Amino acid sequence: MNRRQEPNPDSPWPKQEERERERIIKRDAVLDTAVRMFNEKGFRATSIDQVAIALNVTKPTIYHYFSNKDEILFECVRKGLQVTLDAAQKVEKQGGNGLERLKSLIHDYAVIATEPFGKCVTRTADHDLSEASRKKFRGLKRETDAVIRKVVVSGMEDGSITPGDPRLVTFCVSGALNWISRWYEQDGSLSPEEIAETYVEILINGLAPRR
Amino acid sequence: MNRRQEPNPDSPWPKQEERERERIIKRDAVLDTAVRMFNEKGFRATSIDQVAIALNVTKPTIYHYFSNKDEILFECVRKGLQVTLDAAQKVEKQGGNGLERLKSLIHDYAVIATEPFGKCVTRTADHDLSEASRKKFRGLKRETDAVIRKVVVSGMEDGSITPGDPRLVTFCVSGALNWISRWYEQDGSLSPEEIAETYVEILINGLAPRR
Repeated sequence: MNRRQEPNPDSPWPKQEERERERIIKRDAVLDTAVRMFNEKGFRATSIDQVAIALNVTKPTIYHYFSNKDEILFECVRKGLQVTLDAAQKVEKQGGNGLERLKSLIHDYAVIATEPFGKCVTRTADHDLSEASRKKFRGLKRETDAVIRKVVVSGMEDGSITPGDPRLVTFCVSGALNWISRWYEQDGSLSPEEIAETYVEILINGLAPRR
Repeated sequence: MNRRQEPNPDSPWPKQEERERERIIKRDAVLDTAVRMFNEKGFRATSIDQVAIALNVTKPTIYHYFSNKDEILFECVRKGLQVTLDAAQKVEKQGGNGLERLKSLIHDYAVIATEPFGKCVTRTADHDLSEASRKKFRGLKRETDAVIRKVVVSGMEDGSITPGDPRLVTFCVSGALNWISRWYEQDGSLSPEEIAETYVEILINGLAPRR
């Protein structure tokens, strides 16, 4: 850290880093509340007023963290895609052949699809966002697609994945996984872990029995 | 037919069945135009006025066929789900073991997902529809889900499909297929037929090579 002067420890105001930490906590609370409302009622049917009421604050408080509803939605989908990118990065570090890495990625992606931010990604249509956010959203989706495709390609190269069109394989796998967001409800009978394991099994081994 | 009197063949007005045929053609034209606009711009951003302009008619002409925008959207998704139900019925008649029937169904479903009405089904969120239409939409989706699950169950029973949770298998397969609607563009490099064949291959045989 690059401070010119030590702050007075007795100051009644919170320190810079405390203020920053508090700001992040509050900003996250706005996102957590907004994402659940978007998923449940739809983006257009949710107003900033409703988000504010749910958080016990007034509308200007929300505007302290985000300049408009579009920015909130973009931040929700960005977070959803970021966890998938993080999962892909984890998988790359883990090593193993392409198929083994793809298995881990399918597993983690399935779990993410049951979570609020992951859900928001698949429920958000391009036309929900402003032109600028839409462009960034598409870019992030392409990036996510590319990291999955990279694992698929490396598996086809090392012989652990059946050769084919890596683009279609990626679409097929991510489609199956994204769709979890559509049917999964938290009060469902299956845990995210059970869903993840079953999806790995189906996609890796296929529906025809292996003899 | 149950006519009391033969109509005068020289009447300048069209016959009852001609009028009915023309009505259906015009009603279908409204749906064809609306579904493309919903898919492209989103349901909420499309107005009946815009649909009317695209068809060279006035708004009251549209209201001659549909009482509101909700009814148009519901009719679009109903048509999209009906073709899937028809495909499932065709497959049932075709015979063969469960896996063979599932292969045909995956193939036909993939092609449907590239078409405008099929696309509309997966792009429509429950909250886009009125409460009454939403209920019918959910009912039709459950019905479609049930016919696919039936094929999966019969394949698990006759040993042609790997045993497992038929509900999850159905979700996984239909998710992969529904997602085609999200990425497929008519000017894409792949034909619906190529996509369909590749998806059958991936879902039936899995990503791990069969040795």
